[in-house]
Amino acid sequence: MSVLESLNWRYATKRMTGEKVPQEKIDAILQAARLAPTSSGLQPFTILSVSDRELLEKIQPIANNQPQITEASHLLVFAAWDDITPEQIQKVFSQVIEERNLPADALDKYKSFLTGLFGSMSREDRFNAAARQAYIAFGVAIVAAAEQKVDATPMEGFKPAELDKLLGLREKGLRSVTLLALGYRDTENDWLANLKKVRRPIEELVIEL
Amino acid sequence: MSVLESLNWRYATKRMTGEKVPQEKIDAILQAARLAPTSSGLQPFTILSVSDRELLEKIQPIANNQPQITEASHLLVFAAWDDITPEQIQKVFSQVIEERNLPADALDKYKSFLTGLFGSMSREDRFNAAARQAYIAFGVAIVAAAEQKVDATPMEGFKPAELDKLLGLREKGLRSVTLLALGYRDTENDWLANLKKVRRPIEELVIEL
Repeated sequence: MSVLESLNWRYATKRMTGEKVPQEKIDAILQAARLAPTSSGLQPFTILSVSDRELLEKIQPIANNQPQITEASHLLVFAAWDDITPEQIQKVFSQVIEERNLPADALDKYKSFLTGLFGSMSREDRFNAAARQAYIAFGVAIVAAAEQKVDATPMEGFKPAELDKLLGLREKGLRSVTLLALGYRDTENDWLANLKKVRRPIEELVIEL
Repeated sequence: MSVLESLNWRYATKRMTGEKVPQEKIDAILQAARLAPTSSGLQPFTILSVSDRELLEKIQPIANNQPQITEASHLLVFAAWDDITPEQIQKVFSQVIEERNLPADALDKYKSFLTGLFGSMSREDRFNAAARQAYIAFGVAIVAAAEQKVDATPMEGFKPAELDKLLGLREKGLRSVTLLALGYRDTENDWLANLKKVRRPIEELVIEL
């Protein structure tokens, strides 16, 4: 299925059947998110893959009691770093140097530049920069799920601070930014299942220069 | 090519050949970005597709003189709404009502909720919310480009305020957030072309609960 076919097949599934998604499909979706490009390769986020039923029931009231939280097979919580520190940058660059067999000082100049750049920003702006990177992976995961014929509901309708508390994210230096419920559409009970997909006209969305 | 194959094929191309990408491939990439899901379907961004050579030459110094700006066939500028206003929400919902043949007041309750939600946020937070949506489309466009065997360089290394001025974006209620150079890799001259793709280990990136 092409990317365009996948995108036309998918929709923001509001009701799911509860059927379990095979692990290999979940793994393919997570691997796609892992391969998504990010600024300077930092990948400044963690993805929590929640399939524990009791935990999903606790998450549901934090997410406006939306039924797909517990009808999903897995709920992916995209959590961005709440800061981007010199130590985190160092760790990523050390991995690059090791895996590419580069001289130890090969990336020092770029690392200083990057550390200075983030150092000149407020902590909230560093978090916002991290959150944007998480959204690249989020977009990629949505396409990957559709290709696997796994339904996926992108969800921003939840209380991040409460979810962070429930999952102990702040202690891990993380803040939840968006959710992706993975499962299978319950076509009979989903009011959105057969409604036309609506998008802004391409002539309005795109300006050619 | 599967999504995972596409993601493994692609890399952040640093040098391009200058060869033109056929319009149908550009259109497929833009349509994929258009079909990307966004919060409440707002699609709060515009994509500027720049292929004018003189304009690309003017953009280059704003983007650290990176060669792929002028060696690309097209440069996509993702520009988020600088605000999310009741009028903009109204316009999107009117389109939904029309295309889905819904009663005129069908979405009034949700529209009020959304208007209240954004009304309670600062303007900068509304812009940040819009920017995140642009990044979903950005992630989707990156996968779509790879599927078309079009190289794509995601680029945040530019001065948004200067680019906004050059392209007259603020007058349009837009702020540039990220760039995607589209073209073909110049394997012989690109130092990154044959280096190993490095990503954080999946065990570190993903937490299963």
